[in-house]
Amino acid sequence: MSINLLIKKIIEKSNPTVVGLDPSMSILPPCILKKNIEKYGDTLKALAESVYDFNKGLIDALCDIIPAVKPQSAFYEMYGPDGVFALKRTMDYAKEKGLYVIADVKRGDIGSTAEAYASAYLGTVNIGDKSYKPFGADSATVNAYLGSDGVKPFIEVCRKNKKSIFILVKTSNPSSAEFQDLIAGTRTIYRAMAEHISVWGEDLIGEYGYSELGFVVGATYPSQLIELRKSFQKSFFLVPGYGAQGASARELAGAFDRRGLGAIINSSRGIIGAWKKTDDKDGSNYTEAARVAAEEMKKELKTYC
Amino acid sequence: MSINLLIKKIIEKSNPTVVGLDPSMSILPPCILKKNIEKYGDTLKALAESVYDFNKGLIDALCDIIPAVKPQSAFYEMYGPDGVFALKRTMDYAKEKGLYVIADVKRGDIGSTAEAYASAYLGTVNIGDKSYKPFGADSATVNAYLGSDGVKPFIEVCRKNKKSIFILVKTSNPSSAEFQDLIAGTRTIYRAMAEHISVWGEDLIGEYGYSELGFVVGATYPSQLIELRKSFQKSFFLVPGYGAQGASARELAGAFDRRGLGAIINSSRGIIGAWKKTDDKDGSNYTEAARVAAEEMKKELKTYC
Repeated sequence: MSINLLIKKIIEKSNPTVVGLDPSMSILPPCILKKNIEKYGDTLKALAESVYDFNKGLIDALCDIIPAVKPQSAFYEMYGPDGVFALKRTMDYAKEKGLYVIADVKRGDIGSTAEAYASAYLGTVNIGDKSYKPFGADSATVNAYLGSDGVKPFIEVCRKNKKSIFILVKTSNPSSAEFQDLIAGTRTIYRAMAEHISVWGEDLIGEYGYSELGFVVGATYPSQLIELRKSFQKSFFLVPGYGAQGASARELAGAFDRRGLGAIINSSRGIIGAWKKTDDKDGSNYTEAARVAAEEMKKELKTYC
Repeated sequence: MSINLLIKKIIEKSNPTVVGLDPSMSILPPCILKKNIEKYGDTLKALAESVYDFNKGLIDALCDIIPAVKPQSAFYEMYGPDGVFALKRTMDYAKEKGLYVIADVKRGDIGSTAEAYASAYLGTVNIGDKSYKPFGADSATVNAYLGSDGVKPFIEVCRKNKKSIFILVKTSNPSSAEFQDLIAGTRTIYRAMAEHISVWGEDLIGEYGYSELGFVVGATYPSQLIELRKSFQKSFFLVPGYGAQGASARELAGAFDRRGLGAIINSSRGIIGAWKKTDDKDGSNYTEAARVAAEEMKKELKTYC
């Protein structure tokens, strides 16, 4: 099972960190941009190639200390189709280096469309006697506002291809309360979402007691994190909001079970943009800065899980 | 403004139809597939090229009678990065032929990530003194489960670049009730969503009285369609669910205002897959079949709007 694989990698590295590969323009080191602009001109292709070079450096620098990466699809799509090629190349390279790859796509649609998204990120597409993995991630994030019609095709792919998904429950942003915290009957919408997910995923439980269907729960809401951890002991959590978004390691303690498992904590800018907080204007040493930041985060998390 | 442009095209063609360009594998005509497999082998590239050829034929056959197309991103992403190239080429060609292009991406994220998605589909990305439109659509669909943090970057792009968006309110699928129909206080979640959207969009109203921020409301829920039309008179509706999903033209009547405006009705399989209901096993005449189906739909809608 896929969630077992993630947990094994977390145990092996003794580190519940997932590094968000979110290559916004402002985070790409000038030294990488310069090289690609010289080669490809002022084009989206130059940006997309820079994205891949940047990610490759990060993966090489971090793959022995982190279990997983989470590329955020928006920061590839913004460079057009060339950017999407860079996403695919990034995911292939991360897998080659033994990392668990969570495609942060937050897709959500219905019926055959949801099937197409599930095939794209977690499944296969067959033509003649050939079978292709269009993106080939281990896991993907899903938005279930449309209900179970949108999730079932992903569940089928999880079952068939041994993959996991993380569904948005309580997101880390300030306005997440607008819909997620509305109270319907005796429970919040995010709790209704959590209850549905735990039912959908109840026959996909792996050896560590966690389901292939996890939750996205923001670190910026520590009391909800504790509430959800207590109530849904079979649901693994993908936790954004640490570092740049404001949550501290201490606030994350509630995400973990007694074994120190149960959650993986995302950091994006805090690690991949660490070079911007140094004197390195050209970004030539971005990999070293990322490694220092990742080691620091691992140490901080160790105190609480 | 963008919504004005859509309404003008609807009036000009006297047809409130948007054709969903959802090129699933089963809908691609064998004659097109054969040609591309001969050229590119059993590859995703062959499928992606077939997608573009198929769409180009449809656009040529339909551009004088329909105002808009809505490519569904999932059916391009499933063919990998080559499929995403086909999406971009399809949108460029549709715009060249004067069609309004709605990118059905249902993206939803927060902060800088939502900005990246908005730039990708509706905005620009600058490098040096060059400015690029990564996908260059007129409009995109958005999922706002994450709240206003996820929508504001899209609103800014709508304002700056004269674009529109359609946000999921009440979707057409059977399980849409699971979350959207939950009652919080005195109103359903979908109504809370609609109220938020109408506030977010109140300063982006065009000459026909409609906002750049529209709703997605399924034709399969005709009473909710009527309820929402009455309550939100400044919100333009994108209406899926007609035809293949089961709703009839009569059930759509409630989507329109007294002028016969206020909504655009999507049909995907019913038009682009019309050839599959004929004796044309090879799909050689798929464009003619699509045109007949589109004309039939236009005639049906005319009775009710």
